[in-house]
Amino acid sequence: MATVVRLRLTIAYLGTAFHGWAAQPGLRTVQGELETALTTVLRHPVALTVAGRTDAGVHARHQVAHCDIPADALAQITRAGGPSDALVSLCRRVNALTARTADVPGGDVVIRSAQIVDQTFDARFCALTRHYAYQLSDGSTGYNPLQAHTVWWTGDRVLEVNAMEEAANVLVGEHDFLSFCKPREGATTIRTLHKVEIARDNDHIRIALSADAFCHSMVRSIVGALVDIGLRRKKQDWMERLVAEPSRIGAAPVAPAHGLTLIGIDYPPPADWKRQQQKTRRLRTLDR
Amino acid sequence: MATVVRLRLTIAYLGTAFHGWAAQPGLRTVQGELETALTTVLRHPVALTVAGRTDAGVHARHQVAHCDIPADALAQITRAGGPSDALVSLCRRVNALTARTADVPGGDVVIRSAQIVDQTFDARFCALTRHYAYQLSDGSTGYNPLQAHTVWWTGDRVLEVNAMEEAANVLVGEHDFLSFCKPREGATTIRTLHKVEIARDNDHIRIALSADAFCHSMVRSIVGALVDIGLRRKKQDWMERLVAEPSRIGAAPVAPAHGLTLIGIDYPPPADWKRQQQKTRRLRTLDR
Repeated sequence: MATVVRLRLTIAYLGTAFHGWAAQPGLRTVQGELETALTTVLRHPVALTVAGRTDAGVHARHQVAHCDIPADALAQITRAGGPSDALVSLCRRVNALTARTADVPGGDVVIRSAQIVDQTFDARFCALTRHYAYQLSDGSTGYNPLQAHTVWWTGDRVLEVNAMEEAANVLVGEHDFLSFCKPREGATTIRTLHKVEIARDNDHIRIALSADAFCHSMVRSIVGALVDIGLRRKKQDWMERLVAEPSRIGAAPVAPAHGLTLIGIDYPPPADWKRQQQKTRRLRTLDR
Repeated sequence: MATVVRLRLTIAYLGTAFHGWAAQPGLRTVQGELETALTTVLRHPVALTVAGRTDAGVHARHQVAHCDIPADALAQITRAGGPSDALVSLCRRVNALTARTADVPGGDVVIRSAQIVDQTFDARFCALTRHYAYQLSDGSTGYNPLQAHTVWWTGDRVLEVNAMEEAANVLVGEHDFLSFCKPREGATTIRTLHKVEIARDNDHIRIALSADAFCHSMVRSIVGALVDIGLRRKKQDWMERLVAEPSRIGAAPVAPAHGLTLIGIDYPPPADWKRQQQKTRRLRTLDR
Protein backbone atom coordinates (compact mmCIF):
# COMPACT_ATOMS: atom_id res chain seq x y z
CA MET A 1 0.00 0.00 0.00
CA ALA A 2 1.21 3.50 -0.82
CA THR A 3 2.42 5.65 2.08
CA VAL A 4 -0.01 8.45 2.89
CA VAL A 5 1.05 11.82 4.29
CA ARG A 6 -1.27 14.31 5.93
CA LEU A 7 -0.83 17.97 4.96
CA ARG A 8 -1.87 20.89 7.13
CA LEU A 9 -2.59 23.95 4.98
CA THR A 10 -2.93 27.59 6.04
CA ILE A 11 -5.21 29.42 3.64
CA ALA A 12 -6.23 33.06 3.06
CA TYR A 13 -9.01 34.36 0.83
CA LEU A 14 -11.08 37.35 -0.10
CA GLY A 15 -14.58 35.87 0.02
CA THR A 16 -16.29 38.35 -2.33
CA ALA A 17 -16.22 36.24 -5.49
CA PHE A 18 -16.74 32.85 -3.80
CA HIS A 19 -19.98 31.05 -2.97
CA GLY A 20 -18.49 30.26 0.42
CA TRP A 21 -16.05 27.56 1.48
CA ALA A 22 -18.01 24.37 0.81
CA ALA A 23 -17.76 22.87 -2.69
CA GLN A 24 -21.00 23.06 -4.68
CA PRO A 25 -21.46 21.81 -8.23
CA GLY A 26 -21.26 24.59 -10.82
CA LEU A 27 -20.37 27.31 -8.30
CA ARG A 28 -16.99 28.92 -7.59
CA THR A 29 -16.13 27.98 -4.00
CA VAL A 30 -12.89 28.14 -2.00
CA GLN A 31 -12.87 24.39 -1.40
CA GLY A 32 -13.69 23.70 -5.04
CA GLU A 33 -10.93 25.96 -6.39
CA LEU A 34 -8.31 24.60 -4.01
CA GLU A 35 -9.22 20.93 -4.47
CA THR A 36 -9.11 21.35 -8.26
CA ALA A 37 -5.72 23.07 -8.17
CA LEU A 38 -4.24 20.60 -5.63
CA THR A 39 -5.54 17.66 -7.67
CA THR A 40 -3.94 19.13 -10.82
CA VAL A 41 -0.56 19.80 -9.20
CA LEU A 42 -0.41 16.51 -7.23
CA ARG A 43 -1.98 14.44 -10.05
CA HIS A 44 -4.09 12.72 -7.40
CA PRO A 45 -7.62 13.49 -6.13
CA VAL A 46 -7.51 15.70 -3.02
CA ALA A 47 -10.32 16.21 -0.48
CA LEU A 48 -10.01 18.98 2.12
CA THR A 49 -11.30 19.03 5.71
CA VAL A 50 -11.56 22.57 7.04
CA ALA A 51 -11.55 24.20 10.48
CA GLY A 52 -14.15 26.89 9.78
CA ARG A 53 -16.62 26.52 6.93
CA THR A 54 -17.34 30.11 5.89
CA ASP A 55 -20.46 31.42 4.12
CA ALA A 56 -20.56 33.22 0.77
CA GLY A 57 -18.77 36.58 1.00
CA VAL A 58 -16.93 35.81 4.26
CA HIS A 59 -13.13 36.22 4.18
CA ALA A 60 -10.28 34.35 5.89
CA ARG A 61 -6.82 35.44 6.94
CA HIS A 62 -5.66 32.16 8.50
CA GLN A 63 -8.04 29.36 7.62
CA VAL A 64 -6.73 25.85 8.32
CA ALA A 65 -7.48 22.66 6.39
CA HIS A 66 -5.97 19.21 6.08
CA CYS A 67 -5.81 16.53 3.39
CA ASP A 68 -4.21 13.13 2.86
CA ILE A 69 -2.07 12.51 -0.20
CA PRO A 70 0.23 9.70 -1.34
CA ALA A 71 3.87 10.41 -0.43
CA ASP A 72 4.73 9.71 -4.10
CA ALA A 73 2.50 12.57 -5.27
CA LEU A 74 4.48 15.01 -3.18
CA ALA A 75 7.83 13.54 -4.18
CA GLN A 76 7.18 14.03 -7.91
CA ILE A 77 6.75 17.82 -7.45
CA THR A 78 10.43 18.58 -7.06
CA ARG A 79 13.00 16.18 -8.44
CA ALA A 80 15.76 18.16 -6.77
CA GLY A 81 15.40 19.33 -3.16
CA GLY A 82 13.95 17.81 -0.01
CA PRO A 83 10.36 17.61 1.29
CA SER A 84 10.30 21.25 2.51
CA ASP A 85 11.14 22.46 -1.01
CA ALA A 86 8.33 20.29 -2.33
CA LEU A 87 5.86 21.94 0.06
CA VAL A 88 6.95 25.47 -0.96
CA SER A 89 6.73 24.44 -4.59
CA LEU A 90 3.28 22.93 -4.02
CA CYS A 91 1.97 26.22 -2.57
CA ARG A 92 3.47 28.28 -5.42
CA ARG A 93 2.02 26.06 -8.12
CA VAL A 94 -1.43 25.85 -6.55
CA ASN A 95 -1.47 29.65 -6.07
CA ALA A 96 -0.46 30.23 -9.69
CA LEU A 97 -3.38 28.03 -10.81
CA THR A 98 -6.03 29.58 -8.56
CA ALA A 99 -4.90 33.13 -9.49
CA ARG A 100 -5.94 32.36 -13.09
CA THR A 101 -9.61 31.99 -12.13
CA ALA A 102 -9.70 35.23 -10.11
CA ASP A 103 -10.73 38.67 -11.33
CA VAL A 104 -8.19 40.48 -9.11
CA PRO A 105 -4.50 40.92 -10.03
CA GLY A 106 -2.82 38.56 -7.54
CA GLY A 107 -5.71 36.16 -7.06
CA ASP A 108 -8.33 35.91 -4.29
CA VAL A 109 -7.23 32.70 -2.57
CA VAL A 110 -3.77 31.46 -1.57
CA ILE A 111 -2.27 28.60 0.39
CA ARG A 112 0.05 30.53 2.68
CA SER A 113 1.91 27.48 3.95
CA ALA A 114 1.83 23.69 3.92
CA GLN A 115 3.38 21.28 6.40
CA ILE A 116 3.40 17.55 6.92
CA VAL A 117 1.63 16.55 10.14
CA ASP A 118 0.83 13.42 12.09
CA GLN A 119 -2.40 11.52 11.28
CA THR A 120 -3.76 12.57 14.69
CA PHE A 121 -4.13 16.15 13.39
CA ASP A 122 -7.62 17.03 12.21
CA ALA A 123 -8.20 20.63 11.09
CA ARG A 124 -11.82 20.52 12.24
CA PHE A 125 -11.89 18.32 15.32
CA CYS A 126 -8.55 19.30 16.87
CA ALA A 127 -9.36 23.03 16.85
CA LEU A 128 -9.49 24.55 20.35
CA THR A 129 -10.58 28.08 19.50
CA ARG A 130 -11.82 29.97 16.43
CA HIS A 131 -11.14 33.72 16.12
CA TYR A 132 -13.28 35.97 13.94
CA ALA A 133 -13.32 39.74 13.36
CA TYR A 134 -16.19 41.82 12.04
CA GLN A 135 -15.52 45.28 10.61
CA LEU A 136 -18.10 48.09 10.63
CA SER A 137 -18.13 51.79 9.94
CA ASP A 138 -20.68 54.45 10.82
CA GLY A 139 -21.29 58.16 11.01
CA SER A 140 -21.40 61.28 8.92
CA THR A 141 -18.14 60.62 7.05
CA GLY A 142 -20.32 58.28 5.05
CA TYR A 143 -19.85 55.07 3.15
CA ASN A 144 -16.29 54.43 1.95
CA PRO A 145 -16.24 52.41 -1.31
CA LEU A 146 -12.53 51.63 -0.81
CA GLN A 147 -13.66 49.27 1.96
CA ALA A 148 -16.59 47.86 -0.01
CA HIS A 149 -15.36 44.27 0.21
CA THR A 150 -14.56 44.01 3.90
CA VAL A 151 -16.45 46.63 5.97
CA TRP A 152 -20.19 46.96 6.65
CA TRP A 153 -21.31 50.59 6.69
CA THR A 154 -24.28 50.78 9.08
CA GLY A 155 -25.35 54.32 8.17
CA ASP A 156 -25.10 57.97 9.23
CA ARG A 157 -26.18 57.30 12.81
CA VAL A 158 -23.30 56.84 15.22
CA LEU A 159 -23.26 53.47 16.98
CA GLU A 160 -23.09 53.65 20.77
CA VAL A 161 -20.13 51.40 21.45
CA ASN A 162 -20.56 51.55 25.25
CA ALA A 163 -24.03 50.04 25.00
CA MET A 164 -22.73 47.42 22.58
CA GLU A 165 -19.94 46.47 24.99
CA GLU A 166 -22.39 46.11 27.85
CA ALA A 167 -24.58 43.85 25.74
CA ALA A 168 -21.57 41.84 24.52
CA ASN A 169 -20.67 40.97 28.11
CA VAL A 170 -23.97 39.10 28.45
CA LEU A 171 -22.91 36.76 25.66
CA VAL A 172 -19.54 35.67 27.00
CA GLY A 173 -19.45 32.19 28.57
CA GLU A 174 -21.14 28.85 27.87
CA HIS A 175 -24.68 29.30 26.60
CA ASP A 176 -27.22 27.79 24.28
CA PHE A 177 -26.86 30.19 21.32
CA LEU A 178 -30.03 29.01 19.54
CA SER A 179 -31.25 32.65 19.31
CA PHE A 180 -28.11 33.36 17.24
CA CYS A 181 -27.89 30.16 15.18
CA LYS A 182 -29.48 28.44 12.27
CA PRO A 183 -29.62 25.01 13.97
CA ARG A 184 -28.67 21.83 12.11
CA GLU A 185 -30.43 18.51 12.56
CA GLY A 186 -28.91 16.56 15.46
CA ALA A 187 -26.44 19.31 16.38
CA THR A 188 -26.19 21.17 19.65
CA THR A 189 -26.26 24.98 19.71
CA ILE A 190 -24.38 25.15 23.01
CA ARG A 191 -21.05 26.95 22.59
CA THR A 192 -18.47 28.64 24.79
CA LEU A 193 -17.86 32.23 23.72
CA HIS A 194 -14.47 33.26 25.12
CA LYS A 195 -14.54 36.93 24.19
CA VAL A 196 -16.32 39.71 22.33
CA GLU A 197 -14.14 42.82 22.11
CA ILE A 198 -15.29 46.02 20.45
CA ALA A 199 -12.73 48.65 19.44
CA ARG A 200 -13.49 51.98 17.76
CA ASP A 201 -10.95 53.98 15.72
CA ASN A 202 -12.77 57.09 14.44
CA ASP A 203 -15.56 55.81 12.18
CA HIS A 204 -14.13 52.28 12.06
CA ILE A 205 -15.34 49.63 14.51
CA ARG A 206 -13.83 46.18 14.88
CA ILE A 207 -15.57 43.41 16.80
CA ALA A 208 -13.26 40.52 17.69
CA LEU A 209 -14.93 37.25 18.74
CA SER A 210 -13.42 33.98 19.94
CA ALA A 211 -15.18 30.72 20.78
CA ASP A 212 -14.50 26.99 20.93
CA ALA A 213 -16.65 26.88 17.80
CA PHE A 214 -19.42 28.94 16.24
CA CYS A 215 -22.64 27.48 14.90
CA HIS A 216 -24.02 28.55 11.53
CA SER A 217 -24.48 32.36 11.19
CA MET A 218 -23.64 32.83 14.90
CA VAL A 219 -21.01 35.58 14.48
CA ARG A 220 -23.16 37.54 12.06
CA SER A 221 -26.23 37.21 14.32
CA ILE A 222 -24.27 38.44 17.34
CA VAL A 223 -23.01 41.43 15.30
CA GLY A 224 -26.53 42.10 14.00
CA ALA A 225 -27.87 42.12 17.55
CA LEU A 226 -25.04 44.36 18.80
CA VAL A 227 -25.72 46.87 16.00
CA ASP A 228 -29.41 46.97 16.96
CA ILE A 229 -28.27 47.77 20.50
CA GLY A 230 -25.74 50.37 19.24
CA LEU A 231 -28.49 52.10 17.24
CA ARG A 232 -30.78 52.01 20.33
CA ARG A 233 -33.35 49.98 18.42
CA LYS A 234 -33.10 47.38 21.16
CA LYS A 235 -32.16 47.46 24.82
CA GLN A 236 -29.95 45.47 27.12
CA ASP A 237 -32.84 43.35 28.46
CA TRP A 238 -33.61 42.15 24.91
CA MET A 239 -30.04 40.81 24.62
CA GLU A 240 -30.35 39.19 28.05
CA ARG A 241 -33.56 37.49 26.96
CA LEU A 242 -31.99 36.17 23.73
CA VAL A 243 -29.39 34.40 25.88
CA ALA A 244 -31.61 33.33 28.78
CA GLU A 245 -34.46 32.06 26.58
CA PRO A 246 -32.87 30.40 23.55
CA SER A 247 -35.36 30.54 20.69
CA ARG A 248 -35.69 31.11 16.95
CA ILE A 249 -38.69 33.38 17.67
CA GLY A 250 -37.58 37.00 17.65
CA ALA A 251 -34.06 35.80 16.85
CA ALA A 252 -31.23 38.24 16.26
CA PRO A 253 -30.90 39.88 12.82
CA VAL A 254 -28.00 38.65 10.67
CA ALA A 255 -25.27 41.17 9.69
CA PRO A 256 -24.07 41.04 6.07
CA ALA A 257 -21.35 38.53 5.19
CA HIS A 258 -18.77 40.91 3.70
CA GLY A 259 -17.78 42.48 7.06
CA LEU A 260 -16.68 39.11 8.48
CA THR A 261 -13.18 37.61 8.44
CA LEU A 262 -11.94 34.36 9.97
CA ILE A 263 -8.76 35.53 11.70
CA GLY A 264 -7.25 32.28 12.96
CA ILE A 265 -7.62 28.89 14.63
CA ASP A 266 -5.85 27.70 17.77
CA TYR A 267 -4.74 24.08 18.15
CA PRO A 268 -3.27 22.25 21.14
CA PRO A 269 0.32 20.96 20.96
CA PRO A 270 0.74 17.79 18.80
CA ALA A 271 0.78 15.47 21.83
CA ASP A 272 -2.83 16.52 22.61
CA TRP A 273 -4.24 16.28 19.06
CA LYS A 274 -5.66 12.78 19.52
CA ARG A 275 -7.34 13.56 22.85
CA GLN A 276 -8.74 16.88 21.59
CA GLN A 277 -10.18 15.18 18.50
CA GLN A 278 -11.95 12.54 20.57
CA LYS A 279 -13.30 15.15 22.97
CA THR A 280 -14.75 17.32 20.19
CA ARG A 281 -16.30 14.38 18.37
CA ARG A 282 -18.10 13.38 21.58
CA LEU A 283 -19.38 16.94 22.16
CA ARG A 284 -20.71 17.72 18.71
CA THR A 285 -22.08 15.57 15.96
CA LEU A 286 -21.94 18.55 13.63
CA ASP A 287 -20.05 21.78 14.10
CA ARG A 288 -18.72 24.72 12.20
CA MET B 1 -31.80 82.85 -19.48
CA ALA B 2 -31.94 80.25 -16.71
CA THR B 3 -29.73 80.80 -13.66
CA VAL B 4 -26.80 78.40 -13.58
CA VAL B 5 -25.20 77.12 -10.37
CA ARG B 6 -21.79 75.49 -10.13
CA LEU B 7 -21.52 72.38 -7.93
CA ARG B 8 -18.31 71.18 -6.34
CA LEU B 9 -18.46 67.43 -5.69
CA THR B 10 -16.24 65.30 -3.48
CA ILE B 11 -16.11 61.76 -4.81
CA ALA B 12 -14.73 58.41 -3.60
CA TYR B 13 -14.37 55.21 -5.57
CA LEU B 14 -12.87 51.75 -5.63
CA GLY B 15 -11.29 51.70 -9.09
CA THR B 16 -11.24 47.92 -9.60
CA ALA B 17 -14.36 47.61 -11.74
CA PHE B 18 -13.96 50.91 -13.63
CA HIS B 19 -12.11 51.61 -16.87
CA GLY B 20 -10.66 54.70 -15.21
CA TRP B 21 -12.20 58.14 -14.68
CA ALA B 22 -12.67 59.40 -18.23
CA ALA B 23 -15.95 58.52 -19.98
CA GLN B 24 -15.51 56.09 -22.89
CA PRO B 25 -18.37 54.74 -25.02
CA GLY B 26 -19.46 51.24 -24.01
CA LEU B 27 -17.15 51.04 -20.98
CA ARG B 28 -17.99 51.45 -17.28
CA THR B 29 -16.10 54.55 -16.11
CA VAL B 30 -16.41 56.72 -13.01
CA GLN B 31 -17.24 59.83 -15.03
CA GLY B 32 -19.74 57.90 -17.15
CA GLU B 33 -21.55 56.38 -14.13
CA LEU B 34 -21.72 59.68 -12.27
CA GLU B 35 -22.80 61.78 -15.26
CA THR B 36 -25.55 59.26 -16.07
CA ALA B 37 -26.82 59.22 -12.47
CA LEU B 38 -26.61 63.03 -12.09
CA THR B 39 -28.41 63.53 -15.41
CA THR B 40 -31.16 61.14 -14.28
CA VAL B 41 -31.66 62.75 -10.87
CA LEU B 42 -31.38 66.36 -12.12
CA ARG B 43 -33.32 65.68 -15.35
CA HIS B 44 -30.72 67.77 -17.16
CA PRO B 45 -27.49 66.77 -18.97
CA VAL B 46 -24.48 67.02 -16.65
CA ALA B 47 -20.80 67.20 -17.69
CA LEU B 48 -18.09 66.83 -15.04
CA THR B 49 -14.65 68.48 -14.90
CA VAL B 50 -12.30 66.60 -12.61
CA ALA B 51 -9.17 67.46 -10.61
CA GLY B 52 -7.30 64.19 -11.18
CA ARG B 53 -8.16 61.92 -14.09
CA THR B 54 -7.30 58.45 -12.82
CA ASP B 55 -6.41 55.38 -14.90
CA ALA B 56 -8.24 52.05 -14.90
CA GLY B 57 -7.92 50.33 -11.52
CA VAL B 58 -6.80 53.46 -9.62
CA HIS B 59 -8.88 54.41 -6.57
CA ALA B 60 -9.85 57.76 -5.01
CA ARG B 61 -10.67 58.76 -1.46
CA HIS B 62 -11.29 62.50 -2.07
CA GLN B 63 -11.55 63.19 -5.78
CA VAL B 64 -12.96 66.63 -6.67
CA ALA B 65 -15.07 67.54 -9.70
CA HIS B 66 -17.34 70.40 -10.70
CA CYS B 67 -20.36 70.81 -12.97
CA ASP B 68 -22.82 73.53 -13.95
CA ILE B 69 -26.53 72.91 -13.62
CA PRO B 70 -29.66 75.07 -13.91
CA ALA B 71 -30.81 76.33 -10.51
CA ASP B 72 -34.29 74.95 -11.37
CA ALA B 73 -32.91 71.43 -11.70
CA LEU B 74 -31.64 71.55 -8.13
CA ALA B 75 -34.82 73.20 -6.80
CA GLN B 76 -37.05 70.38 -8.11
CA ILE B 77 -35.17 67.75 -6.06
CA THR B 78 -36.72 68.69 -2.74
CA ARG B 79 -39.99 70.55 -2.65
CA ALA B 80 -39.65 71.04 1.07
CA GLY B 81 -36.37 72.18 2.60
CA GLY B 82 -33.67 74.64 1.52
CA PRO B 83 -30.75 74.31 -0.88
CA SER B 84 -28.55 72.36 1.59
CA ASP B 85 -31.26 69.69 1.90
CA ALA B 86 -31.40 69.53 -1.89
CA LEU B 87 -27.64 68.87 -2.03
CA VAL B 88 -27.80 66.07 0.58
CA SER B 89 -30.76 64.61 -1.28
CA LEU B 90 -28.88 64.86 -4.59
CA CYS B 91 -25.94 62.86 -3.20
CA ARG B 92 -28.22 60.19 -1.71
CA ARG B 93 -30.19 59.72 -4.91
CA VAL B 94 -27.10 59.61 -7.13
CA ASN B 95 -25.42 57.12 -4.78
CA ALA B 96 -28.51 54.90 -4.74
CA LEU B 97 -28.44 54.84 -8.57
CA THR B 98 -24.71 54.14 -8.98
CA ALA B 99 -24.85 51.39 -6.31
CA ARG B 100 -27.21 49.46 -8.61
CA THR B 101 -24.54 49.02 -11.29
CA ALA B 102 -21.85 47.84 -8.83
CA ASP B 103 -21.02 44.25 -7.93
CA VAL B 104 -20.18 45.12 -4.30
CA PRO B 105 -22.82 45.51 -1.55
CA GLY B 106 -22.72 49.28 -0.95
CA GLY B 107 -21.54 50.35 -4.40
CA ASP B 108 -18.06 51.26 -5.66
CA VAL B 109 -18.49 55.01 -6.23
CA VAL B 110 -20.14 57.67 -4.08
CA ILE B 111 -20.50 61.43 -4.07
CA ARG B 112 -19.46 62.18 -0.50
CA SER B 113 -20.59 65.79 -0.53
CA ALA B 114 -21.86 68.52 -2.85
CA GLN B 115 -21.72 72.26 -2.38
CA ILE B 116 -22.62 75.31 -4.42
CA VAL B 117 -19.53 77.33 -5.38
CA ASP B 118 -18.69 80.50 -7.25
CA GLN B 119 -18.11 80.30 -11.04
CA THR B 120 -14.43 81.10 -10.42
CA PHE B 121 -13.96 77.59 -8.96
CA ASP B 122 -12.56 75.07 -11.41
CA ALA B 123 -11.84 71.56 -10.04
CA ARG B 124 -8.96 71.09 -12.47
CA PHE B 125 -7.36 74.50 -12.90
CA CYS B 126 -7.77 75.85 -9.35
CA ALA B 127 -6.05 72.82 -7.76
CA LEU B 128 -2.85 73.73 -5.94
CA THR B 129 -1.65 70.28 -4.90
CA ARG B 130 -2.60 66.69 -5.63
CA HIS B 131 -1.95 63.99 -3.01
CA TYR B 132 -1.59 60.32 -3.92
CA ALA B 133 -0.71 57.23 -1.88
CA TYR B 134 0.64 53.95 -3.20
CA GLN B 135 0.38 50.80 -1.07
CA LEU B 136 2.81 47.89 -1.33
CA SER B 137 3.57 44.75 0.62
CA ASP B 138 6.60 42.48 0.55
CA GLY B 139 8.35 39.67 2.37
CA SER B 140 7.92 36.12 3.49
CA THR B 141 4.44 36.59 4.99
CA GLY B 142 3.39 36.36 1.36
CA TYR B 143 0.60 37.74 -0.75
CA ASN B 144 -2.54 38.71 1.18
CA PRO B 145 -5.69 38.27 -0.95
CA LEU B 146 -7.68 40.39 1.52
CA GLN B 147 -5.78 43.39 0.11
CA ALA B 148 -6.07 42.25 -3.51
CA HIS B 149 -7.83 45.42 -4.64
CA THR B 150 -5.62 48.07 -3.09
CA VAL B 151 -2.12 46.74 -2.34
CA TRP B 152 0.64 45.63 -4.75
CA TRP B 153 2.54 42.62 -3.43
CA THR B 154 6.08 42.90 -4.84
CA GLY B 155 7.23 39.41 -3.80
CA ASP B 156 9.12 37.47 -1.15
CA ARG B 157 12.20 39.72 -1.29
CA VAL B 158 12.21 42.47 1.31
CA LEU B 159 12.34 45.99 -0.15
CA GLU B 160 15.15 48.15 1.23
CA VAL B 161 13.21 51.20 2.31
CA ASN B 162 16.35 53.20 3.20
CA ALA B 163 17.62 52.95 -0.37
CA MET B 164 14.16 53.89 -1.67
CA GLU B 165 14.07 56.95 0.59
CA GLU B 166 17.49 58.07 -0.61
CA ALA B 167 16.37 57.73 -4.23
CA ALA B 168 13.08 59.50 -3.52
CA ASN B 169 14.94 62.58 -2.30
CA VAL B 170 16.44 63.00 -5.78
CA LEU B 171 12.92 63.42 -7.19
CA VAL B 172 11.65 66.18 -4.91
CA GLY B 173 11.58 69.66 -6.43
CA GLU B 174 10.87 71.10 -9.89
CA HIS B 175 12.09 68.80 -12.66
CA ASP B 176 11.27 67.66 -16.16
CA PHE B 177 9.66 64.28 -15.33
CA LEU B 178 9.73 62.99 -18.93
CA SER B 179 11.48 59.78 -17.78
CA PHE B 180 8.40 59.11 -15.59
CA CYS B 181 5.63 60.31 -17.94
CA LYS B 182 3.78 59.29 -21.02
CA PRO B 183 3.94 62.74 -22.66
CA ARG B 184 0.93 64.29 -24.37
CA GLU B 185 1.12 66.39 -27.51
CA GLY B 186 1.79 70.04 -26.68
CA ALA B 187 1.99 69.45 -22.92
CA THR B 188 4.95 70.11 -20.66
CA THR B 189 6.33 67.34 -18.44
CA ILE B 190 7.80 69.80 -15.96
CA ARG B 191 6.22 69.38 -12.52
CA THR B 192 6.98 70.33 -8.93
CA LEU B 193 7.06 67.30 -6.66
CA HIS B 194 6.53 68.53 -3.11
CA LYS B 195 7.14 65.28 -1.26
CA VAL B 196 7.70 61.55 -1.50
CA GLU B 197 7.36 59.89 1.92
CA ILE B 198 7.87 56.18 2.46
CA ALA B 199 6.57 54.52 5.62
CA ARG B 200 6.87 50.86 6.53
CA ASP B 201 4.59 49.04 9.01
CA ASN B 202 5.74 45.40 9.11
CA ASP B 203 5.19 44.04 5.59
CA HIS B 204 3.07 47.03 4.54
CA ILE B 205 4.70 50.01 2.79
CA ARG B 206 2.93 53.26 2.01
CA ILE B 207 4.41 55.82 -0.37
CA ALA B 208 2.78 59.26 -0.09
CA LEU B 209 3.38 61.68 -2.97
CA SER B 210 2.32 65.30 -3.41
CA ALA B 211 2.82 67.58 -6.43
CA ASP B 212 1.27 70.61 -8.08
CA ALA B 213 0.11 68.09 -10.69
CA PHE B 214 1.21 64.72 -12.00
CA CYS B 215 1.53 63.90 -15.68
CA HIS B 216 0.18 60.64 -17.10
CA SER B 217 1.49 57.51 -15.29
CA MET B 218 3.93 59.64 -13.26
CA VAL B 219 3.08 58.30 -9.79
CA ARG B 220 3.14 54.69 -10.96
CA SER B 221 6.47 55.23 -12.77
CA ILE B 222 8.03 56.80 -9.68
CA VAL B 223 6.82 53.84 -7.59
CA GLY B 224 8.07 51.38 -10.21
CA ALA B 225 11.51 53.00 -10.14
CA LEU B 226 11.60 53.08 -6.33
CA VAL B 227 10.74 49.36 -6.18
CA ASP B 228 13.59 48.58 -8.60
CA ILE B 229 15.88 50.49 -6.22
CA GLY B 230 14.37 48.73 -3.18
CA LEU B 231 15.02 45.33 -4.80
CA ARG B 232 18.61 46.43 -5.64
CA ARG B 233 17.95 45.90 -9.33
CA LYS B 234 18.97 49.53 -9.88
CA LYS B 235 21.22 51.95 -8.05
CA GLN B 236 20.99 55.50 -6.88
CA ASP B 237 22.91 56.86 -9.91
CA TRP B 238 20.28 55.37 -12.24
CA MET B 239 17.58 57.41 -10.47
CA GLU B 240 19.78 60.50 -10.63
CA ARG B 241 20.20 60.02 -14.38
CA LEU B 242 16.44 59.60 -14.92
CA VAL B 243 15.95 63.04 -13.38
CA ALA B 244 19.04 64.78 -14.83
CA GLU B 245 18.57 63.44 -18.38
CA PRO B 246 14.81 63.39 -19.07
CA SER B 247 14.14 60.75 -21.71
CA ARG B 248 11.71 57.99 -22.72
CA ILE B 249 14.73 55.75 -23.42
CA GLY B 250 15.33 53.46 -20.43
CA ALA B 251 12.34 55.08 -18.74
CA ALA B 252 11.13 53.92 -15.35
CA PRO B 253 8.91 50.79 -15.14
CA VAL B 254 5.25 51.41 -14.33
CA ALA B 255 3.84 49.92 -11.09
CA PRO B 256 0.39 48.28 -11.35
CA ALA B 257 -2.67 50.53 -11.04
CA HIS B 258 -4.43 48.77 -8.16
CA GLY B 259 -1.95 49.98 -5.47
CA LEU B 260 -2.66 53.64 -6.23
CA THR B 261 -5.20 55.91 -4.50
CA LEU B 262 -5.87 59.61 -5.04
CA ILE B 263 -5.98 60.87 -1.46
CA GLY B 264 -7.00 64.49 -1.88
CA ILE B 265 -6.71 67.83 -3.67
CA ASP B 266 -5.76 71.16 -2.11
CA TYR B 267 -7.35 74.42 -3.30
CA PRO B 268 -6.57 78.03 -2.40
CA PRO B 269 -9.19 80.10 -0.53
CA PRO B 270 -12.12 81.26 -2.72
CA ALA B 271 -10.66 84.76 -3.18
CA ASP B 272 -7.69 83.22 -5.02
CA TRP B 273 -9.61 80.82 -7.28
CA LYS B 274 -9.66 83.16 -10.27
CA ARG B 275 -5.95 83.98 -10.10
CA GLN B 276 -4.95 80.34 -9.54
CA GLN B 277 -7.04 79.25 -12.54
CA GLN B 278 -5.39 81.80 -14.81
CA LYS B 279 -1.94 80.86 -13.56
CA THR B 280 -2.44 77.12 -14.19
CA ARG B 281 -3.95 77.66 -17.64
CA ARG B 282 -0.86 79.68 -18.63
CA LEU B 283 1.51 76.97 -17.33
CA ARG B 284 -0.06 73.92 -18.87
CA THR B 285 -2.10 73.40 -21.97
CA LEU B 286 -2.92 69.89 -20.77
CA ASP B 287 -2.53 68.45 -17.31
CA ARG B 288 -3.68 65.61 -15.13
